[in-house]
Amino acid sequence: MTETLEFINPEDVRRISCIGGGPIGAGWAAHFLAQGYDVTSYLHEPSEQQAFHDIVDTAWISLEALGLAEGASRARLTLTYDLEEAVSAAQFVQESAPENLKLKQSLYQQLGDLVPENIVISSSTSGLTMTEIQRHCSTPQRTVVGHPFNPPYLLPLVEIVGGEKSSKAAVNWSCEFYQVAGKAPLVMNKEIPGFIATRLQEALWREALHMVANGEATPQQIDTALINGPAPRMALLGQCMAFHVACGEGGMATNLDQFGPALKLPWTRLKAPELTQELRDRMVNGCNEMAADRHFKELAAERDRGIVAILNAITALQNNSS
Amino acid sequence: MTETLEFINPEDVRRISCIGGGPIGAGWAAHFLAQGYDVTSYLHEPSEQQAFHDIVDTAWISLEALGLAEGASRARLTLTYDLEEAVSAAQFVQESAPENLKLKQSLYQQLGDLVPENIVISSSTSGLTMTEIQRHCSTPQRTVVGHPFNPPYLLPLVEIVGGEKSSKAAVNWSCEFYQVAGKAPLVMNKEIPGFIATRLQEALWREALHMVANGEATPQQIDTALINGPAPRMALLGQCMAFHVACGEGGMATNLDQFGPALKLPWTRLKAPELTQELRDRMVNGCNEMAADRHFKELAAERDRGIVAILNAITALQNNSS
Repeated sequence: MTETLEFINPEDVRRISCIGGGPIGAGWAAHFLAQGYDVTSYLHEPSEQQAFHDIVDTAWISLEALGLAEGASRARLTLTYDLEEAVSAAQFVQESAPENLKLKQSLYQQLGDLVPENIVISSSTSGLTMTEIQRHCSTPQRTVVGHPFNPPYLLPLVEIVGGEKSSKAAVNWSCEFYQVAGKAPLVMNKEIPGFIATRLQEALWREALHMVANGEATPQQIDTALINGPAPRMALLGQCMAFHVACGEGGMATNLDQFGPALKLPWTRLKAPELTQELRDRMVNGCNEMAADRHFKELAAERDRGIVAILNAITALQNNSS
Repeated sequence: MTETLEFINPEDVRRISCIGGGPIGAGWAAHFLAQGYDVTSYLHEPSEQQAFHDIVDTAWISLEALGLAEGASRARLTLTYDLEEAVSAAQFVQESAPENLKLKQSLYQQLGDLVPENIVISSSTSGLTMTEIQRHCSTPQRTVVGHPFNPPYLLPLVEIVGGEKSSKAAVNWSCEFYQVAGKAPLVMNKEIPGFIATRLQEALWREALHMVANGEATPQQIDTALINGPAPRMALLGQCMAFHVACGEGGMATNLDQFGPALKLPWTRLKAPELTQELRDRMVNGCNEMAADRHFKELAAERDRGIVAILNAITALQNNSS
């Protein structure tokens, strides 16, 4: 059966079902509507309807500012409280039910039987693994994690990873689909707690909490430091390339060879891994691949233009609102 | 003597001396020139001159795009290889010599005698403390750390902290001066390794290195995750307010009370501090102060407008360069 599984062409998807009416589920619905899809949203009960519409309407302001796809309309949204009806015509299912393992396992047991098995079901979970979620699902091959970042109608990231029983084909299909659907997909090779983005953010967050706990900084100082220091650069380049470009001609190799000893300094409470030759090479090769054939002066000029654009955009916004 | 010390009004500063011709020293010179100051830069030797000018010229492109102050001109730059001449007319000294403690101690010993003691001398050091640097200085009261973020002509942050012998007046004066000079000053109460911004960034960086070392992520995945996930939000709000706004009406209180247990999850290799009532209150009060009287819906709308502005600015830039 699994061998003959044929997924729809990602570009042919027209009808998407979104399970869940909270900020994540409603945010997804808004995003897919803005991309021109027909969206059916499943809400648990009618009392959720007002909050759901509020989120979609709020999101729409930003989605219009980012640019709607041709034919995109909130009129293409259907609401239902019947799970079977919600997924009956779906060509893709984005599940954003509450973060409760038993609830999700039971839901995937139902969805596994309701949804044709050549349709991918993707979970917005941020804290559970698909290996756990898909445990009682009769058709787990096409289930994956597709973890967005909040707010999902604005931040492009979707972290994709399969569980033990997920097929490689479903993971690859999801990556292609999210790309077509205007997202920035990131396929992970391993199921790890927090995926990638949250782990990075959480390390920073816990260091911040330590500093506040120890009277070394206030929340105001934490935010001032980030906004005016590392964050604009990180929004443009990430962190690996930020260091690569900062080190001139030598790039990441200079960073690690010259400043490697600083990894032993108490500049955070998190101890660094040992800087082995293998780790050094992975970092250097990865950055060189991202730099491709661009000279560091070109990269630095691009960085500067980008930071100027970000700072000017924020300033313009502040001037408009004041 | 120290009681009668009278600093110049920060708004009356016209002449600045920059010590050091590397990327930080040259970047500072470019920034101050763009703000309309007369700048005298001290370079160690003539061989540094070409690289120095290259940095200033590169920086100038961005500084023009950000907007020059009236009268700002690169013609108001003077170069010298004579330390005494470099500081003879200075109303403020920004020191960006190499990160070598003995070298800096000897330099502050000289500067301490050369520069009138009502003139503030501020160090760009990122890894040393002013308590160490000022050890052999005869007039240490007016010496402080004023740590910029790279590139110093673009990122607004300056972390200010005094050493044991620095006067509170010098620290306060520096804060006022950097504000007047177009920077975002952050006065710290404690000398801690890495100050605030680098500690936050370093925690994230070390988690990234662990993930690459363990085959959990590649440098490309690290950067993709940051650029499309937490970083644009962080550039706008920092991290405390990002969580505060994400949690709706309840704000940071909801974040900590509801998701506090997640601090025990293995979402990073850095263990969180214990979430005491005191830590909780500091976080909640800090965020409430930043929110002031703005309702969370207003904050969320501001966040969305800001993220849209940042994403659109980056997209416009990419379209222009392709």
